[in-house]
Amino acid sequence: MTVKQLSMPELVSGCVELGIPGVGLWREPVAEFGLEATAKLVRDAGLAVTTLCRGGFFTAIDPAERAAALADNRKAIDEAATLGTDTLVLVSGGLPQGSKDLHGARERIADALSELGPYAASNGVRLAIEPLHPMFASDRCVVSTLSQALDIAERFPADQVGVTVDTYHIWWDDTAPAAIARAGAGGRIHTFQLADWIIPLPQGVLTGRGQIGDGAIDMREWKGYVEAAGYTGPIEVELFNDELWAGDGHALLSQTARRFVEHAA
Amino acid sequence: MTVKQLSMPELVSGCVELGIPGVGLWREPVAEFGLEATAKLVRDAGLAVTTLCRGGFFTAIDPAERAAALADNRKAIDEAATLGTDTLVLVSGGLPQGSKDLHGARERIADALSELGPYAASNGVRLAIEPLHPMFASDRCVVSTLSQALDIAERFPADQVGVTVDTYHIWWDDTAPAAIARAGAGGRIHTFQLADWIIPLPQGVLTGRGQIGDGAIDMREWKGYVEAAGYTGPIEVELFNDELWAGDGHALLSQTARRFVEHAA
Repeated sequence: MTVKQLSMPELVSGCVELGIPGVGLWREPVAEFGLEATAKLVRDAGLAVTTLCRGGFFTAIDPAERAAALADNRKAIDEAATLGTDTLVLVSGGLPQGSKDLHGARERIADALSELGPYAASNGVRLAIEPLHPMFASDRCVVSTLSQALDIAERFPADQVGVTVDTYHIWWDDTAPAAIARAGAGGRIHTFQLADWIIPLPQGVLTGRGQIGDGAIDMREWKGYVEAAGYTGPIEVELFNDELWAGDGHALLSQTARRFVEHAA
Repeated sequence: MTVKQLSMPELVSGCVELGIPGVGLWREPVAEFGLEATAKLVRDAGLAVTTLCRGGFFTAIDPAERAAALADNRKAIDEAATLGTDTLVLVSGGLPQGSKDLHGARERIADALSELGPYAASNGVRLAIEPLHPMFASDRCVVSTLSQALDIAERFPADQVGVTVDTYHIWWDDTAPAAIARAGAGGRIHTFQLADWIIPLPQGVLTGRGQIGDGAIDMREWKGYVEAAGYTGPIEVELFNDELWAGDGHALLSQTARRFVEHAA
């Protein structure tokens, strides 16, 4: 998604040329290029698929919406398995229209995971609850902190449910380093993602994720926390940024690789 | 600030007509109308001044900037005393340009309060640290949760430093109810403010505070928490909203009073 202006073959060849060993994929571009075709393309290129984004949206109250969400998540788990990644990132969902019940919404997430966790594990896929920045609490994700994510994840075995640690969402939180240690001790850091915090936030705030090095977050500090917690997996850079998307995708991919080396390697 | 399209006399007469017993004032419109003139106007109208907004911006590293901030806060304390309010709300400040050190910025806030707290108390004014929503952490306030605000406030006597409980900033936080209880037990809830969470957030996110009843927050739930914590002080409605500001100020003031009765009284 960082370089969504690139086609799937451009993305894959770009990663290979730059020596980037793995790539996190999103379901929509995978579906567009074709699931089997994408799986073959990345496999033939020797690229690892680090994660698939995204499952989730578990907070609907309406039974039909809820059943549809569960079915779609089973499909996402199947897609992850086909792509050869062991991790499906979850954006858990916001408040249903008109609801003010954060607690109830969080409980419906746990309910959904009790159905999906065993299915995921039986397919070799781990679910990774991503706490989203509190500014997304009403519309995208009622799980706003790493501690809240762990409170839910720890109801399940770690090979079923863990967490996504994303600097952009948690950098402001002085309790997050302790939560990272807790997640690591339980083997629940299923992926680690980087983006920088830049201002002003754009209207709607979704596409405000900044290139690493451009903002307020000390990437090495957070890398230090996940490493101290025992994490040895891939580190993903995930940017959503209209300005970056408007430019050349190859240039953005190389800039991202350079910034990663400069600020996080 | 909720009805910033009204002049000071319009605001005061509007409150009196609607039976609103007190008003929180901001320094800029007070300075514009004149400090002594404002104090006389509200006193003669029999209106309480619930709080003065705002002091703060304590995070500068540069000694000259720091000294200027302290001097300005002493002036704000004097203004609060002249207006007859016992509470100065603090927006503590963001990260200095180029800094990524949240911890250091928070410590500089505590340093500033050690100088200002005694001065405030000797003038009958309490300082009320306002945790701002984490989306303001880099540019306005590195104090993002009520627990962080209390960690700082509790270094000082409660008649010097307490907190502002504002639904807009803390509604997403499942640890905030416990923090409210902690604040109440220490006599540190110095004011309670309402605004609703509405989406989409506007560019820059500052003017996104929604009219109560329009969004995701259960006002009575939060009022219940502060009341259970022993708070018996005034409840302020504080909206920043370009759309509301563009309309008629008197209509907005009566709408706000109606919404308060409907959702919080």
